[in-house]
Amino acid sequence: MSRFWSRKAGQLEPYVPGEQPSGRKLLKLNTNECPHPPSERVLKAIREIEGVDLLRYPDPNAERLRAALAERHSLSTDQVFTGNGSDEVLAHLFQALLQRDGTTVLVPDISYSFYPVWCQLYGITLERVPLRDDFSLAPEDYRSDAGSVLLANPNAPTGMAITTGQVRELLEASVNRLVVVDEAYVDFGAESAVPLIHEYDNLVVVRTFSKSHALAGLRIGYALAQKPLIDGLQRVKDSFNSYPLDAVAQAAGVAAIEDTAWYDKTCKDVMASRETLSTGLVELGFRVLPSRGNFVFAEHHQHEGALIFEALRREEVIVRRWDKPRIANFLRISVGTREQTADFLRILDQVLSRMGQKGGKGEGKGEGKGEGEGEGKGVEKR
Amino acid sequence: MSRFWSRKAGQLEPYVPGEQPSGRKLLKLNTNECPHPPSERVLKAIREIEGVDLLRYPDPNAERLRAALAERHSLSTDQVFTGNGSDEVLAHLFQALLQRDGTTVLVPDISYSFYPVWCQLYGITLERVPLRDDFSLAPEDYRSDAGSVLLANPNAPTGMAITTGQVRELLEASVNRLVVVDEAYVDFGAESAVPLIHEYDNLVVVRTFSKSHALAGLRIGYALAQKPLIDGLQRVKDSFNSYPLDAVAQAAGVAAIEDTAWYDKTCKDVMASRETLSTGLVELGFRVLPSRGNFVFAEHHQHEGALIFEALRREEVIVRRWDKPRIANFLRISVGTREQTADFLRILDQVLSRMGQKGGKGEGKGEGKGEGEGEGKGVEKR
Repeated sequence: MSRFWSRKAGQLEPYVPGEQPSGRKLLKLNTNECPHPPSERVLKAIREIEGVDLLRYPDPNAERLRAALAERHSLSTDQVFTGNGSDEVLAHLFQALLQRDGTTVLVPDISYSFYPVWCQLYGITLERVPLRDDFSLAPEDYRSDAGSVLLANPNAPTGMAITTGQVRELLEASVNRLVVVDEAYVDFGAESAVPLIHEYDNLVVVRTFSKSHALAGLRIGYALAQKPLIDGLQRVKDSFNSYPLDAVAQAAGVAAIEDTAWYDKTCKDVMASRETLSTGLVELGFRVLPSRGNFVFAEHHQHEGALIFEALRREEVIVRRWDKPRIANFLRISVGTREQTADFLRILDQVLSRMGQKGGKGEGKGEGKGEGEGEGKGVEKR
Repeated sequence: MSRFWSRKAGQLEPYVPGEQPSGRKLLKLNTNECPHPPSERVLKAIREIEGVDLLRYPDPNAERLRAALAERHSLSTDQVFTGNGSDEVLAHLFQALLQRDGTTVLVPDISYSFYPVWCQLYGITLERVPLRDDFSLAPEDYRSDAGSVLLANPNAPTGMAITTGQVRELLEASVNRLVVVDEAYVDFGAESAVPLIHEYDNLVVVRTFSKSHALAGLRIGYALAQKPLIDGLQRVKDSFNSYPLDAVAQAAGVAAIEDTAWYDKTCKDVMASRETLSTGLVELGFRVLPSRGNFVFAEHHQHEGALIFEALRREEVIVRRWDKPRIANFLRISVGTREQTADFLRILDQVLSRMGQKGGKGEGKGEGKGEGEGEGKGVEKR
């Protein structure tokens, strides 16, 4: 604390991102990165960067990248807004479009934990709408007289998706309500709301290069919407930082969009690994929510999530867990490569065995309990 | 305009950055970039980036870069805050430290034109303090009962600098007043306030890699201050965007800091070109303010700045000009390489000749007027 902090600075409870340990020996399945390296075309674009590209300011409006995105999504360039990761795009969206007097933002009670932080930052009232008992989202739960709806589809950390028809229901409930769909994970098998942009002027779709383009390290996010909404975002961005996307990220982003073969193959591989992971987890005694993301959300029928989390950590495996109502027993596990998935399931099997749950493959759905092997070990503090 | 814009989005008058035309044929002296390409070490660091560096999220706290900056400035890492260009750093600074209830921010009447935009974005009252008639800044003009002082040193667009002693005066006037010194251009011959950070807990110094490290294209800025002030910035940043600096920028930034030989030579070259430019301008009939930046601010004794600006534009030369009180007749000209400076002075000489002012070298200080040659030409609309 300092006598120079603004009231805002003092009140904030900042977002805490997943751990990014340095060193590469850990099996890191905690931040939903893509397990495969990005397209060779991206690396080539980066290697071709010259001094003259760096000494100049980058294009403040990322015209080439926005044109490439527009083409990919069958929109026009003025329907695309780019920013420093989808987090920055969302931050501007809160200030430009969600911060309206006397209105609230409806958000699922279980969703991306940065949403409440932005509400706090911009003084916006958040209303949490509980997901159903099975963690599904029902559009009719979002009353139409409130200000706006913000949801992730697929949702994080559950991985569960709604259909385009359900997004349409949310949009139609009131033409005066803004609906923001955060599609960070949409490329792994969910339905995108992007085609609805032509029809609805109250829809914004937010996307990122961090997941399905394997470029978390480069910070590229974007929003798609009809031009008046994009203009609102642009006004706030131009009053904050003219050049949030550097020259390297802009060039790499274009290359990533162009390599559709890499993209198709990578998404397919991740989805295949997700199925292997889900099946393996069920065999080890987990309940696994039906995921359309590059991660799964699962709880063990017998062991506490916190204990499994700690035991995995001791084996140099990092997953993610939130100490929050309804989900405290769940682990969110990012989908790795085929090899990482096999390693993870093998280590998890050992960990569970030591915790007193043999639960190995071929032993049914892990309902057997208390084999007792090695119980004294492995649950001490870190 | 859209019915979904927040009141804020509707009220903003965004900053308009200097033109960044694509194509490289123009003589571009309008945005104070470094005329020399960055260090080879920077390019090497970028070429060494691998896929695995990109698929992962970058270090949210840029520890290596902050440690390198701390070492360079004889501070500790927790006295360094990094962001996406000094513009983002300044934006966070407005929200974290300058947005205090009932206080104003004192800013010179002629300074970086983004400052008032941030005040508007965060609802902060700005008070403009006129520079003296010769555009110098007098610390005693900044009354100590106001909230904070924000100034660029060297100032932009004047290029004029104050001494460390004068910064100290501003700091001492009140221990309860925050003093922010934007040192974007300090490396070209001005005195830095960084050594004062050890003594004063009410000082923040903001810096950038865009000028003296030739990395405008990579967007790296930072703030230096005692830890409690840095903590305030960090809280706002962590509530806005966890990873504003991408993996490439972090690696390149470290390489740039390490190459002190490149840095020393480049700053020296730019200062030498600045002297050539200033002398040449005086010989062509300009009044040139004494600059410590990588640009000069100059007005012609006879011809209107707007007309010279337009005539240069037709010759594919871009400089910068503001249609604002006190400075409407001035041109801000970025310092180019030795060759660019010679080209610029040659083209300017031709332009002035056509405008009816021979003003060539050896004809005194350009006081002769109305030689009349080619007067009908060159002042049509673009």
